[in-house]
Amino acid sequence: MLPTIGDVKAAAERIKGIAVRTPLIRNDALDAQTGAKVFVKAENLQRGGAFKMRGATNAIAALAPEVRARGVIAFSSGNHAIAVSTAAKRFGVGAVIVMPIDAPKIKLDTTRSLGAEVVTYDRVKESREEIGAKLSGDRGLAMIKPFDDPFVIAGQGTAGLEIGEEISPDIVFVPASGGGLSTGTALALPKARIFAVEPAEHNDIQRTLETGSIQRNAPGIRSICDGLLTEQMGELTYPIARARFERVVPVSDEAVLRAMKFAFRHLKLVLEPSGAASLAALLEGGVDVRGQTVAIIASGGNVDAETFVRALAV
Amino acid sequence: MLPTIGDVKAAAERIKGIAVRTPLIRNDALDAQTGAKVFVKAENLQRGGAFKMRGATNAIAALAPEVRARGVIAFSSGNHAIAVSTAAKRFGVGAVIVMPIDAPKIKLDTTRSLGAEVVTYDRVKESREEIGAKLSGDRGLAMIKPFDDPFVIAGQGTAGLEIGEEISPDIVFVPASGGGLSTGTALALPKARIFAVEPAEHNDIQRTLETGSIQRNAPGIRSICDGLLTEQMGELTYPIARARFERVVPVSDEAVLRAMKFAFRHLKLVLEPSGAASLAALLEGGVDVRGQTVAIIASGGNVDAETFVRALAV
Repeated sequence: MLPTIGDVKAAAERIKGIAVRTPLIRNDALDAQTGAKVFVKAENLQRGGAFKMRGATNAIAALAPEVRARGVIAFSSGNHAIAVSTAAKRFGVGAVIVMPIDAPKIKLDTTRSLGAEVVTYDRVKESREEIGAKLSGDRGLAMIKPFDDPFVIAGQGTAGLEIGEEISPDIVFVPASGGGLSTGTALALPKARIFAVEPAEHNDIQRTLETGSIQRNAPGIRSICDGLLTEQMGELTYPIARARFERVVPVSDEAVLRAMKFAFRHLKLVLEPSGAASLAALLEGGVDVRGQTVAIIASGGNVDAETFVRALAV
Repeated sequence: MLPTIGDVKAAAERIKGIAVRTPLIRNDALDAQTGAKVFVKAENLQRGGAFKMRGATNAIAALAPEVRARGVIAFSSGNHAIAVSTAAKRFGVGAVIVMPIDAPKIKLDTTRSLGAEVVTYDRVKESREEIGAKLSGDRGLAMIKPFDDPFVIAGQGTAGLEIGEEISPDIVFVPASGGGLSTGTALALPKARIFAVEPAEHNDIQRTLETGSIQRNAPGIRSICDGLLTEQMGELTYPIARARFERVVPVSDEAVLRAMKFAFRHLKLVLEPSGAASLAALLEGGVDVRGQTVAIIASGGNVDAETFVRALAV
């Protein structure tokens, strides 16, 4: 059963006081450079440093109390891990997180510091789904999926709902990988044109929409956008994407680094690569936005100092 | 005539639509580390990247139209320059800015890019006041003072007014140099305990309050906080400071750099050194804030990449 805008509104009620309402930021340089009226949804200022807090909180809040009490499990490249750990802590239950061994150190460290038990795996050789399923079965933990769950999609969509409460965007640029944030946002903003943004080499969504069936990325394809490296879209996110994504905008690592630098210099925001993807698509994606009201979702800010310094040097 | 909270409220009306309302940000790590309920007033997200937009806009808005039409002049280490240039542009009048030759390059470049005429001087050998007065007289320009003007003080105070509309802080940490922001904030929040923050070596305010008369800093004293290097307080800001500052908290360059790194890692905000001074005072100033509701004003984010990289390396 696909989630609806009603589920997004219910999620907004459920996450109140746990996930925070993030500001929608204007910037003169951004307007001048694009010729549009641009609003930046600063999800890097979300609790845990990324939008993932919204979906994780909604999913955990929706569990039956006796199920939740046994604890939760999640697999994640990082921000979902932080979000599930933080939300679990707020609900007073344990969390086990399955993370790739090559996840950014800041994300591994932060997850551990939140009291979660971290289990690492090799992104190229192992399947996180299998590891997760085994741990989940053995210990009776409730799996909090990263995107392909109606409560997670609806939760992420609250970012879009908040945008819609303040403005009526013509166009929304939103990073997409598993599709939780992008399809949730599409549900929340039924009148907006949705431009999904993905790493240029890691273009499963573009191929999925072109072919009309869910395509995978070959394992081992890398991008600086460590939060956008999901193998494929979900069974729930795909049909929403098919119905609502007007276009997929690919962004190169270089464009993402330049967007991070732009955010440093003009927006005064720290964005992680995945969090700067929508800004990169707006600035360099070749989309004609002149005269339009545009929202971009800056999805997170959990970035290592090394990567940030690299962006400042471009 | 000293400004009052009524003047701050009038300023809030006058600057609407030009200076923006900035968000008040919470952060779990900040609360955990301090034991307080901390709110960060993110003035780095202000138009122009610093709170200075508030006072400059209020002062220019208050000029008689025929005076304003001849143009304005200001002297500034940087953020006041950007603010006056931006506000003058919004009012459609010219701006001449007198800036120290060693101001951060980003601030010199930004001021020029805003269409202002920049006149540079040597901070150690020359008096910006004399240069400014001469240019002002020759061309009939209206001087927009950086702090010692009732409209500027009232304008900066709108940052405090916005804080007071959302919370009732027990304690406010605010950077102080000329005293515009700090005394304006004190006026706007009559019930809060005001902790003024200044660079440790550049401690004129501490000495001013101890001796009961306005003290100067020797020329040439440096600090990484380039926005907090005013020679002395003003005739208007001093009496307000004397009446309202509970304490002056000195911060070292190293503490400021660590605060910038904390803001990068936890708050996801880009802060310039002066903008991180209040955070440094909260984290390392030795003030007992446990159990208190604390507001800190993160006053700006206009920082060179070089300085930011230095902060990330501490």
